[in-house]
Amino acid sequence: MRFLHTADWHIGKKLHGYDLLADQKDSIQQIIAIAEAEQVDAIVIAGDLYDRSVPAVEAVELLNQSLIEINLDKKMPLLAISGNHDSSSRLATGAPWFQQTDFHLVTQLKQAFEPVTIGDTQFFLLPYIEPIAARLYFDEEFPSIKEAVQRIIAEMQPLFDPTKKHVLITHFFIAGGLRTESETPLEVGGLNSVPYELMAPFDYVALGHLHSKNALKEGPVRYSGSPLKFSLSEINDEKGVWIVDSDTMLPEFRPLTPLRDIKKIQASFADLLHPDFYQNLDREAFWQLLLTDRAVIPNMMNQLRAVYPYILSVERVNGRESQPMQQFKKREASPQKVFATFFEEITGDTLTERQQDWLDKGLQIAMDTEKRD
Amino acid sequence: MRFLHTADWHIGKKLHGYDLLADQKDSIQQIIAIAEAEQVDAIVIAGDLYDRSVPAVEAVELLNQSLIEINLDKKMPLLAISGNHDSSSRLATGAPWFQQTDFHLVTQLKQAFEPVTIGDTQFFLLPYIEPIAARLYFDEEFPSIKEAVQRIIAEMQPLFDPTKKHVLITHFFIAGGLRTESETPLEVGGLNSVPYELMAPFDYVALGHLHSKNALKEGPVRYSGSPLKFSLSEINDEKGVWIVDSDTMLPEFRPLTPLRDIKKIQASFADLLHPDFYQNLDREAFWQLLLTDRAVIPNMMNQLRAVYPYILSVERVNGRESQPMQQFKKREASPQKVFATFFEEITGDTLTERQQDWLDKGLQIAMDTEKRD
Repeated sequence: MRFLHTADWHIGKKLHGYDLLADQKDSIQQIIAIAEAEQVDAIVIAGDLYDRSVPAVEAVELLNQSLIEINLDKKMPLLAISGNHDSSSRLATGAPWFQQTDFHLVTQLKQAFEPVTIGDTQFFLLPYIEPIAARLYFDEEFPSIKEAVQRIIAEMQPLFDPTKKHVLITHFFIAGGLRTESETPLEVGGLNSVPYELMAPFDYVALGHLHSKNALKEGPVRYSGSPLKFSLSEINDEKGVWIVDSDTMLPEFRPLTPLRDIKKIQASFADLLHPDFYQNLDREAFWQLLLTDRAVIPNMMNQLRAVYPYILSVERVNGRESQPMQQFKKREASPQKVFATFFEEITGDTLTERQQDWLDKGLQIAMDTEKRD
Repeated sequence: MRFLHTADWHIGKKLHGYDLLADQKDSIQQIIAIAEAEQVDAIVIAGDLYDRSVPAVEAVELLNQSLIEINLDKKMPLLAISGNHDSSSRLATGAPWFQQTDFHLVTQLKQAFEPVTIGDTQFFLLPYIEPIAARLYFDEEFPSIKEAVQRIIAEMQPLFDPTKKHVLITHFFIAGGLRTESETPLEVGGLNSVPYELMAPFDYVALGHLHSKNALKEGPVRYSGSPLKFSLSEINDEKGVWIVDSDTMLPEFRPLTPLRDIKKIQASFADLLHPDFYQNLDREAFWQLLLTDRAVIPNMMNQLRAVYPYILSVERVNGRESQPMQQFKKREASPQKVFATFFEEITGDTLTERQQDWLDKGLQIAMDTEKRD
């Protein structure tokens, strides 16, 4: 059998304040098209369907419509679990009815021991859980998620049908995985990771949580990554889904093309606003702008947004506008010293002798005026 | 065929700050037991399943569990609509899958024209809508909900199967209905009501919105009322469900017994705290306490709550503690006048001549002391 492995849809997520619903809808449509073209027998979504436990109503509508299209309209089997961003209780709404059309949505630990068989493969769906859930289920103490997952997998193994392949769908930080800036760490203090070795009993592990498909690069334990770039740190990531054939369990990558990509450019302010410069740029992209200017630019953001509506950040590659005047915590700095340092902060140059002379004279006039009043 | 008519579950609603989830769970269990005993062919829930558009996770869990029990475990058909308290989009989650097991959950106007036939009866499910929804659907202007509902019912009538009975399930304020204090008015300014006469084409109208079963007392257009009392104004209401047989379309009432009823008692503070007095009272009820005392009672609420944990209100039948000192908006009132009026407010008595004398002397001493300092 063949399946498509995706995860971390994070429907409702915003990128630096920009709504991504249109981008998310578009990427889901691409995933559906790939699933159809590849004639897969199931779509696997390894957690974090929503970005928040209480998603906005527009996010609810997009996920509802997408799942209806996949499972009811296109009749594709779906295997999905809740991730750390989902509210397992809210996401579970309707789940017992979904099973009737081979949509298996698993949100509770006890369901992890009810494998779903499709073709020659047994799927085990283990949602994101806290160690407390394992403690309640097994009535045993677990110092960290590592021991809990170890116990869970030991409990799964007797359920293995030896005539089938075995796939685990889950949502944890597997030790060795590379982070991006858009995941929410699962726990502080180093107790958050699950050792890679624990995954050994499975022929393939379809992971969610880390947003880069390269978080684990080789072997049959893989993150699909998110369908979209969710942070500047992912600017060079290639986003997509895995197509896995159970004969080989070797994942093949199928890229997704974002509606609006994240792009970076370095230029002067004048160039950025010049039609000759921007006419060949994708102005509707999410832009990281690297300004070469050092001078203060009045009304800078509004002017830039008129050309580039979706700016993620503006950085000064030659200046340090973002941290000016930090030396002036002491009251004893003279007006001359304050001005000279400010000039240097903004322009990167020191005052010339002539400028210093103007400054001295100007300040003298100001002080004389003050005395007279 | 026979059906059970209920509405206004308002799962997650609080009563004067007290959580009602246990009471709501209990009342739903009673409804299920009645449905089984009466061997109904469907349970009708006429809107306001939840109390809020974004219900608490515990409310989501209770409704999910209840619907699973009714429709999947007990295999009972369900006909439900969204009310003005529900978010139609959030409530719609899973609805297309529910239909497979005869759970018809209707949240959009367009679905009102897809009647559901059970036995000899055609059910039309019209969720609560704003006039704007009718405008978008028909591409016509409607000055108020009255004209919108008129148009909707005109659109339904050609769909009537003449060999069947016709039942409308909806959630509006039907003119003539009696309000309680626990409904949220649908609109201000008198544009909110739907004329009773518009209901004429139907053999029975299963309404939600008003919380009293007696809001419309006779005929085949009925509010079921809420399963629980949601305000003090409902203290004498009888709560329950209607059982309707399509042969007669005459609703028969089946009462529900609340886990914790709302009760009222008038007594002195001393009596209320005396074991001889309260030993025969249902202390776990929601109490409206009418105190006969006039004096100030220090730490009153804490003492009362030690005996009656669920107090809805405490009123002074002989005093007016709740609005003391309201005369003192003018600065010119003398200390004598202020004190005398305060005394009267609290005790209901005027100062005796001797008390007046004490007051005058006390104030004189105070003023003399002040002058010396």
